[in-house]
Amino acid sequence: MCGLPILAILVRHSTVSSFPSNGQTAAMIDGKLIADGIRSRIASEVGRMKNSIDRIPGLAVIMVGWRKDSETYVRNKMKACEEAGIKSVLAQLPNDCSEDDILKALLSFENDPSIHGILVQLPLPNHLNEERILNALSLEKDVDGFHPLNMGNLAMRGREPLFIPCTPKGCVELLIRSGIDIMGRKAVVIGRSNIVGLPTFLLLQRHHATVSVVHAFTKNPEEITREADIVVTAAGVPNLVRGSWLKPGAVIIDVGTHPIEDPNHEHGYRLLGDVCYEEAVQVASALTPVPGGVGPMTIAMLLSNTLDAAKRAYDFS
Amino acid sequence: MCGLPILAILVRHSTVSSFPSNGQTAAMIDGKLIADGIRSRIASEVGRMKNSIDRIPGLAVIMVGWRKDSETYVRNKMKACEEAGIKSVLAQLPNDCSEDDILKALLSFENDPSIHGILVQLPLPNHLNEERILNALSLEKDVDGFHPLNMGNLAMRGREPLFIPCTPKGCVELLIRSGIDIMGRKAVVIGRSNIVGLPTFLLLQRHHATVSVVHAFTKNPEEITREADIVVTAAGVPNLVRGSWLKPGAVIIDVGTHPIEDPNHEHGYRLLGDVCYEEAVQVASALTPVPGGVGPMTIAMLLSNTLDAAKRAYDFS
Repeated sequence: MCGLPILAILVRHSTVSSFPSNGQTAAMIDGKLIADGIRSRIASEVGRMKNSIDRIPGLAVIMVGWRKDSETYVRNKMKACEEAGIKSVLAQLPNDCSEDDILKALLSFENDPSIHGILVQLPLPNHLNEERILNALSLEKDVDGFHPLNMGNLAMRGREPLFIPCTPKGCVELLIRSGIDIMGRKAVVIGRSNIVGLPTFLLLQRHHATVSVVHAFTKNPEEITREADIVVTAAGVPNLVRGSWLKPGAVIIDVGTHPIEDPNHEHGYRLLGDVCYEEAVQVASALTPVPGGVGPMTIAMLLSNTLDAAKRAYDFS
Repeated sequence: MCGLPILAILVRHSTVSSFPSNGQTAAMIDGKLIADGIRSRIASEVGRMKNSIDRIPGLAVIMVGWRKDSETYVRNKMKACEEAGIKSVLAQLPNDCSEDDILKALLSFENDPSIHGILVQLPLPNHLNEERILNALSLEKDVDGFHPLNMGNLAMRGREPLFIPCTPKGCVELLIRSGIDIMGRKAVVIGRSNIVGLPTFLLLQRHHATVSVVHAFTKNPEEITREADIVVTAAGVPNLVRGSWLKPGAVIIDVGTHPIEDPNHEHGYRLLGDVCYEEAVQVASALTPVPGGVGPMTIAMLLSNTLDAAKRAYDFS
């Protein structure tokens, strides 16, 4: 049922059997390269849509306040839209705006037929009720896939969500496009957030992996993780996953991105993942780097969801 | 964080360490007894509601066709309603009825203020679209908790489903009322149906267990199950789980009910679970029997959900 994954074959020649290994180096899963390929296919699809029906997909982003990280994420998303030929619009609201202000912005995008996807950049300031705001999004424009009805449809067998949340979808795309079998493999998801951990579990299970979810209350995360063929980490703790946590030959997808001050780096900081890369690279058969792994895929999946939303709206295939 | 479960203490005196053990017998989790206690408390709550506001909860059941097992389940549910003072109404439709016929019945119950819970007895005949029918149920009357929005709210942290599906809720109530800690324990759910396996996973995770889901594509279900402190089986395969699958001292909740012909039994058949009871009882610290384990709890939870729905409708607490 499950052949050897292509990337794992590369590695098994060097007979990985114990940790620390003797200099084995895992294949790097190049998220940027894979995402670039997806984005260029999206751009050509957008071009085909424009040529055929004179319409392009449109994404609206609602951002509240001026968090530096959120600004960077939003800028990257909008830049990626532009490069793919997707229209993007930003509604930037002040930090002390009311829930009604956001709902008004949201409603105007809901009523705008040139907007096919709407995303509310999270986290919101504490005085705002995230649940109420996200519930106000129509399913058809919820390109982040965070609506509970969408999540329920992702969870239930025989149902189809309109959108799969971008980061989990990106993680699984990385596995698939790297030739890694998921069906029947043992997977561990570290973290159970609504945005990453939970939908990643649901998606891996849809692909017929046998999945365990490790979280803050798990007593022996290291032991459980060491049994997995596939590990997806979204723990939010830099360098949490050491080499000793990994089964030799495992495939590791690292969702963590933690800026750490570093005056030697261009921007004064560098990014760390949840996984201790230098150790993991000696044990795993394949793993994603940080940066350049999951991050670019999240953006590519957002473009892909927005394109899908527009195709659905225009009944264009 | 996690003390020894009360039932496990009973057993550990006999130093369970390997399988087969020397005659150790697990504590039986008496679902019937626990369910009887819950039902009698529900009956007194219904009495209090009637005395205070002159209203009682009402449950409507929609049954299509004449499956023998469904008839038994429905009869048991309605009998339990009667005993608790809850009104129950049955709409029995012929096997060849149309989707519209069902939707019409459903709508009439939706519009009836004396009905607070509606359940569609599953499975439906193949010509009917179960998804479309279940989606037509309002969240407020979905006492089975099978609506995808309800499931999404069960899955997501920080959200609250209006109803928790009856069987999973019954399983977790059995654990809690038997003094078994869930938080931080390792749990395995065998099976991933929308009705039992999936919501049981979601509910155990809400209680902070570390949960793995075993299903038909799992390669080594025995090995994974043997690591669990808590095992919930809803596999639909009689006697699947042998003693060798279990960790000594584990707690086992058996959702399976398989009628097996047996001329020596009163009704010409007897019920088997997913678990080989005679073997499991020598390894586990506590387990549910079949019948008399989860079954009675499912009914008690249906009454409890119906009472909750009525309290919500009348703003009665």
